[in-house]
Amino acid sequence: MAVRTIPLTIRMAGGTDIENITQSVAEAVTASSLQDGIVTVFVKHTTASIMIIEDEPGIRADTRTFWDRIIPPDSHWQHNTLNPGEDNGHSHLRGQLQGPSLTIPFAAGTLLLGTWQQVVLVDFDTRSRMRECIVQVLGE
Amino acid sequence: MAVRTIPLTIRMAGGTDIENITQSVAEAVTASSLQDGIVTVFVKHTTASIMIIEDEPGIRADTRTFWDRIIPPDSHWQHNTLNPGEDNGHSHLRGQLQGPSLTIPFAAGTLLLGTWQQVVLVDFDTRSRMRECIVQVLGE
Amino acid sequence: MAVRTIPLTIRMAGGTDIENITQSVAEAVTASSLQDGIVTVFVKHTTASIMIIEDEPGIRADTRTFWDRIIPPDSHWQHNTLNPGEDNGHSHLRGQLQGPSLTIPFAAGTLLLGTWQQVVLVDFDTRSRMRECIVQVLGE
Repeated sequence: MAVRTIPLTIRMAGGTDIENITQSVAEAVTASSLQDGIVTVFVKHTTASIMIIEDEPGIRADTRTFWDRIIPPDSHWQHNTLNPGEDNGHSHLRGQLQGPSLTIPFAAGTLLLGTWQQVVLVDFDTRSRMRECIVQVLGE
Repeated sequence: MAVRTIPLTIRMAGGTDIENITQSVAEAVTASSLQDGIVTVFVKHTTASIMIIEDEPGIRADTRTFWDRIIPPDSHWQHNTLNPGEDNGHSHLRGQLQGPSLTIPFAAGTLLLGTWQQVVLVDFDTRSRMRECIVQVLGE
Repeated sequence: MAVRTIPLTIRMAGGTDIENITQSVAEAVTASSLQDGIVTVFVKHTTASIMIIEDEPGIRADTRTFWDRIIPPDSHWQHNTLNPGEDNGHSHLRGQLQGPSLTIPFAAGTLLLGTWQQVVLVDFDTRSRMRECIVQVLGE
């Protein structure tokens, strides 16, 4: 049993920008030489999340639409009202609900993703930022 | 430390159908002979999720109601508009928000679930399908 | 590789009460003497969740506001209608969507949280209760 911790830094545009990181996660498993275990994918920010989606243009557009409906940008979020200069209250609420981490099993050296499952980083913030992720492979 | 990976295939009805898989998860821990560690329960599809709920008829009904309210079926989801024949845009959005995986600790050979916590598979798709899950036990 | 399982019991007020447990999680990693691996934080209740947030008063207020909007208290939830004496149907729906567990990687004996990321327990129930959590450290 061993642990391999691999940082992954990506420039994101904000505004529910989506970046497909499936290949980086798969390569971390291969590079670890481990056969069976879990990969934890974790983003080190409160206004971004890790998701698994079918990554096609319709789903990317619908993801933006549905977040704008259920947690809209609004100057009245108390995060914006109480902290001068902040405009990303909605980004925080989206990030904490979608969540910062995902755990994916692998076996025989291969991620056990379904045919249509892609691992993506989504950025809910209001401006472009560099985003740090951790891909940690743990197994035997 | 060891890893045991157990596939679990279940026919689901779609339409926010819920299947209780707690016993299968508990049996995977017992069969592994491991005493302490984590179980990762993962569904290999983008329109289904793993949840922990109090599994009683009221909660099952409320789960359908609340999803129909916050992410309703709608022919205008771009997943449906851009991909001829698709009608399950809402199923994707629900699945990616609820999430495909859960990690549950166990100790002394027993899952550390609370009294009312049950592990369920929920299927958000629009028709009946066979669903593949992975139950992976990792520990010592 | 080893596993350390640490219980954590906290009195919570209900009503989307938030308690910051970051220090307890960090201390569990330190006490384990493990260097690299994952911490699983799990709450053993169906009406409470583990979240990562930027923990400041605006976000705490906004978290209450947004849950009251998307899953409001309502005597018509079937959990309340079918089970005499129950009034917490909305608490269950919130807990199952936010989820009972989080997995956080650590390396060189330190949690890999971002600058603004704090681990919190949130209680969606309608009255004060004692809440049991598990902090499980697994690694080498």
